[in-house]
Amino acid sequence: MHEFTYYTPTKVVFGRGSEAKTGALLKEYGAGKVLLHYGGGSAERSGLLGRIREQLAAERIPFVELGGVMPNPRLSLVREGITLCEGEGVDFILAVGGGSVIDSAKAIGYGVTGGGDVWDFYDFKRKAETCLPIGAVLTIAAAGSEMSNFCVITNDDTWEKRGTKSDAGRPRFAVMDPELTMTLPPYQTACGCADILMHTMERYFNHGENMELTDGIAEALMRTVIRNAGILVKEPENYEARAEIMWAGSLSHNGLTGCGTDGGDWATHKLEHELGAMFDVAHGAGLTAVWGSWARLVYGERLDRFAKFATNVMNVPWQGNERETAVCGIYAAEAFFRSIGMPVTLAELGIAPTEEQIDALAEKCMKSAQGMPGIVKKLSREDIAGIYRAAM
Amino acid sequence: MHEFTYYTPTKVVFGRGSEAKTGALLKEYGAGKVLLHYGGGSAERSGLLGRIREQLAAERIPFVELGGVMPNPRLSLVREGITLCEGEGVDFILAVGGGSVIDSAKAIGYGVTGGGDVWDFYDFKRKAETCLPIGAVLTIAAAGSEMSNFCVITNDDTWEKRGTKSDAGRPRFAVMDPELTMTLPPYQTACGCADILMHTMERYFNHGENMELTDGIAEALMRTVIRNAGILVKEPENYEARAEIMWAGSLSHNGLTGCGTDGGDWATHKLEHELGAMFDVAHGAGLTAVWGSWARLVYGERLDRFAKFATNVMNVPWQGNERETAVCGIYAAEAFFRSIGMPVTLAELGIAPTEEQIDALAEKCMKSAQGMPGIVKKLSREDIAGIYRAAM
Repeated sequence: MHEFTYYTPTKVVFGRGSEAKTGALLKEYGAGKVLLHYGGGSAERSGLLGRIREQLAAERIPFVELGGVMPNPRLSLVREGITLCEGEGVDFILAVGGGSVIDSAKAIGYGVTGGGDVWDFYDFKRKAETCLPIGAVLTIAAAGSEMSNFCVITNDDTWEKRGTKSDAGRPRFAVMDPELTMTLPPYQTACGCADILMHTMERYFNHGENMELTDGIAEALMRTVIRNAGILVKEPENYEARAEIMWAGSLSHNGLTGCGTDGGDWATHKLEHELGAMFDVAHGAGLTAVWGSWARLVYGERLDRFAKFATNVMNVPWQGNERETAVCGIYAAEAFFRSIGMPVTLAELGIAPTEEQIDALAEKCMKSAQGMPGIVKKLSREDIAGIYRAAM
Repeated sequence: MHEFTYYTPTKVVFGRGSEAKTGALLKEYGAGKVLLHYGGGSAERSGLLGRIREQLAAERIPFVELGGVMPNPRLSLVREGITLCEGEGVDFILAVGGGSVIDSAKAIGYGVTGGGDVWDFYDFKRKAETCLPIGAVLTIAAAGSEMSNFCVITNDDTWEKRGTKSDAGRPRFAVMDPELTMTLPPYQTACGCADILMHTMERYFNHGENMELTDGIAEALMRTVIRNAGILVKEPENYEARAEIMWAGSLSHNGLTGCGTDGGDWATHKLEHELGAMFDVAHGAGLTAVWGSWARLVYGERLDRFAKFATNVMNVPWQGNERETAVCGIYAAEAFFRSIGMPVTLAELGIAPTEEQIDALAEKCMKSAQGMPGIVKKLSREDIAGIYRAAM
């Protein structure tokens, strides 16, 4: 077991009607002036934003608003948010939405408290050590940003998508009401489930040694996501399934499923990030589109873990040896992705990068990983291009 | 799934050599003047306290000391600690030890910040809303107090053992170095494993409905404890097993394995607390001595969960029906307790309460539970006395 630090200070308030506790939580956490940050029209149309505004008014907490966060949240809006917060003396950000909105809030928080150019934190120039306090009202189970220290922003000048990591950005509280996710379109629900699953898969496929409890928790989480994602295909308004997925989303990315590992692989995420930046594809779908091609390239490096994944997570019967069992596990995972409507090739994802684009993607991957991405197998530029090609 | 709040702000620093980070953590958390709080002689003899004192000196953090915490930590020492902290202007408590030392530190912290009589917080008169900040250097994997909001104190005037719960008492940081637990005597190691297992068993046996992820995590944790407790019987210096048990100890009691349940049963804990107060038995051993008798009284109320425990945790083959499977699971758990040297009767625990004492124990149980303890089955005074008798 590797040494680790585990730090998840976010207070989670989970369940039916928890949304109504947002105002009281802001008060509890001493919010003086709030930036109400959100995405497109759905939170407005559903009445959620209206109810949040009423709670802010009832608690007499002054606030300003900034909507318009898009999937793959943009640096330009982050800059706008920083200027707004500085001008208005905002001391707390309330993010109402999914991972994109929460990530955008984190970036604004880093920028306001850190000064200088906020892109520095994503361009490896500085580390974010401080952040405005953030609260989240989660409307999409997917990114796990509501409890995580991760934040991914897309620079809409250079079309680079970059992640940064700082405990300062972990939200103070997260309101998780599974009912808010009931009306998500099936594709978005499935993308979220894929993202949740991948956050633990990335950690699970590693080069560490013994970590029995972490493996057991990770496997339980993956089985839960697989079973309940299947339920949601047929019953999108199944509260229990929504609740299982929502809680799995937070635990999948708050650090728990990586304790004692070597940190995990994360190459699939790097490959997707560049796809997301170049083609603006949905994150979860981009991940499933390349994962199988990644897995088939690297599984020989950790046959034991791929075989364990096959039997303990994908329920694959033992095939007589690790290699066969491992391969069956990869195909079983792809079959699961397809069963919830997720792509397992770039064609199914709706994109067909040219050879030139593949070269550019591979180069950007190397740059964003600051070296060869991956842990199970360190990937060369040729490996990366090969995965994109194999996924065509 | 029931609604829940999940809040675990403790920063865990885990692994070989993490002990050496204690001074830096105290600095990071702004400790001005520290109470160094500990138990008997083992932390002194092992040199641990000496190394901690050196770190405090190196960081130029002034400190005073209070040792002598005993298992089933005593109110009289808590009162002494409060007086000392008030007189010396202590603003941070560093607990070096196991659950007893950390619980004693929490009680002192409640007393210093809450004023009045500290026993009020245990006697249902007031709720502890504030606490001095606490850091823990854990030397025994057992109680989970290093991440929990629980605190159990024994009043050595009235010999009542009472628990209280407050998020204010959750330690700010916990240093967890599995090497510090290597030299624990086998009996203490086994008591710790039993306690860890019971913290999740108490939550697992409940009257809630669906909570798939929580169940999966709980089952993984219980399997991990059972397997590694067995290893430690033969190989007390197995680092990996010590590490699995130590991490399981924290996750077992920080709230994670209860998310979405109705809170769990906890009757076994109530029964043990009174035994502990009257006979000063080791907590883990007291739990295993009564658990089977409790389980045989109540399992019919939740055959499904007892059967699931049998198959998913105790690895009992399906016996054709829930009832038989459930019963086999209870005996399998008792067989496991015996295999690590834990008692499954009061005689094995080394006590033989008289009928009068059983009456007194049952009455104290009802008083401390403020009504009928238990969730799987609410226990009457007669039920409680019956469990003690069945466990003779």
